[in-house]
Amino acid sequence: MLQTRELIDSVATSSPLGHEVLAKAVDVLAECEEAVTACATGMLAEKDTDDLRTAISQDLDCADVTAVTRRFLTRGSSHDPALITAQLEACLIACQRSHDLCAQHAQHHEHCRICAEATGRAADACREILAAVRS
Amino acid sequence: MLQTRELIDSVATSSPLGHEVLAKAVDVLAECEEAVTACATGMLAEKDTDDLRTAISQDLDCADVTAVTRRFLTRGSSHDPALITAQLEACLIACQRSHDLCAQHAQHHEHCRICAEATGRAADACREILAAVRS
Amino acid sequence: MLQTRELIDSVATSSPLGHEVLAKAVDVLAECEEAVTACATGMLAEKDTDDLRTAISQDLDCADVTAVTRRFLTRGSSHDPALITAQLEACLIACQRSHDLCAQHAQHHEHCRICAEATGRAADACREILAAVRS
Amino acid sequence: MLQTRELIDSVATSSPLGHEVLAKAVDVLAECEEAVTACATGMLAEKDTDDLRTAISQDLDCADVTAVTRRFLTRGSSHDPALITAQLEACLIACQRSHDLCAQHAQHHEHCRICAEATGRAADACREILAAVRS
Repeated sequence: MLQTRELIDSVATSSPLGHEVLAKAVDVLAECEEAVTACATGMLAEKDTDDLRTAISQDLDCADVTAVTRRFLTRGSSHDPALITAQLEACLIACQRSHDLCAQHAQHHEHCRICAEATGRAADACREILAAVRS
Repeated sequence: MLQTRELIDSVATSSPLGHEVLAKAVDVLAECEEAVTACATGMLAEKDTDDLRTAISQDLDCADVTAVTRRFLTRGSSHDPALITAQLEACLIACQRSHDLCAQHAQHHEHCRICAEATGRAADACREILAAVRS
Repeated sequence: MLQTRELIDSVATSSPLGHEVLAKAVDVLAECEEAVTACATGMLAEKDTDDLRTAISQDLDCADVTAVTRRFLTRGSSHDPALITAQLEACLIACQRSHDLCAQHAQHHEHCRICAEATGRAADACREILAAVRS
Repeated sequence: MLQTRELIDSVATSSPLGHEVLAKAVDVLAECEEAVTACATGMLAEKDTDDLRTAISQDLDCADVTAVTRRFLTRGSSHDPALITAQLEACLIACQRSHDLCAQHAQHHEHCRICAEATGRAADACREILAAVRS
């Protein structure tokens, strides 16, 4: 997003995480929330909804968990390593789960293809921050 | 809330968790979200805001994490033990953290007293579900 | 919920709305958010998903709009009549819409029956507050 | 964001609004939510919190209302002109309010400067969609 890095810099309160890593994660999570929200909508309108029930439900979970994780990263809640670690792990699981399932539908549905990419990037961003918090 | 148990029963999809435990947790998390949101508002209006900065920030985190955890429990996302475990752990940490800090202000601020109680109950509910998921 | 009225009293900042009205609306909106979230989950798992697409989508909207409206009422955002009026109108429309549609499915699905009741009460609470704000 | 327009295209269900307008609004609202969340955090940490109470509270409202409005635009809830109009009006009021107040602090706090810009763009995007819905 336009100003994420500037925002993180302007607020930053000596986070142990680098601002560049934080800003990137915030952006990638925002894109992920958008992608899973749109993809859930798209799947709900498809004819093969029966095959997509689980994927829809997982996308709804993913949208909510990425939203709260992004707020935590923005608020500097990362100062509490136990909290941010647990929240990032939940976020990572939800993103990876949506990635794995939507990747199977990527050839048939364009929204699933985009969603699989966005959730994959979000899972990677979670892993990167988790590694930084734990190091 | 009025119909939480009926709702859980009407949707229930063979959750490994008992419906009574789920319904209680959903209600307690809803009360917790309400309490921390009100308490953050109350603290922001107090004269000793300087002493309350951290508590306000923690309450905002707690409001967001209880909201998403409640949705997970309602949606039956508990079918995925790894996801629900990680999300409950984040929720437990946030509730316990708000409980510990608001309990210190409970004598001076009525909203902190109510908040300390609500977050304490929410932390207990998280522990109870975590124990059930892991057993 | 257990302590909504006490919370409103403890925070209250001379709202033009009565605390009893506010507390009741907060509770009814929390119940509504829970009901539509559960009902959307229930409908997504039903065999007649094709008939329920629109109802699912409307319930997801309703869950999000009741959540934010409840936060506004709790935060005392009601001090800004223009903001709270617009937000309550959006909330009222979403609740009424879910009510109208789920009432049609109430005979076949228990979660739709409960949802129709909860959204109906929420719509009434929105109307009551809107009348109070405008008076 | 990376793929907003592609997502809107992949899901699109004959929205009366142009996809380009929708995609831009979604992005601008995501940036706004991020900016007000960061700015509220920043203001809460400033020494002149007393002068910033109202601005913090307004930013919290703005974060929640932009989040739900963005989901509505993504989900195609814009098919219901009454709902999307009311929600956009609430969003516009909240963005404009945060813009007006943070602009007054823009010289002293970098996060307020960025926030004033982001909320201003978001208010403009709401106006643009409102005009399109009403035309």
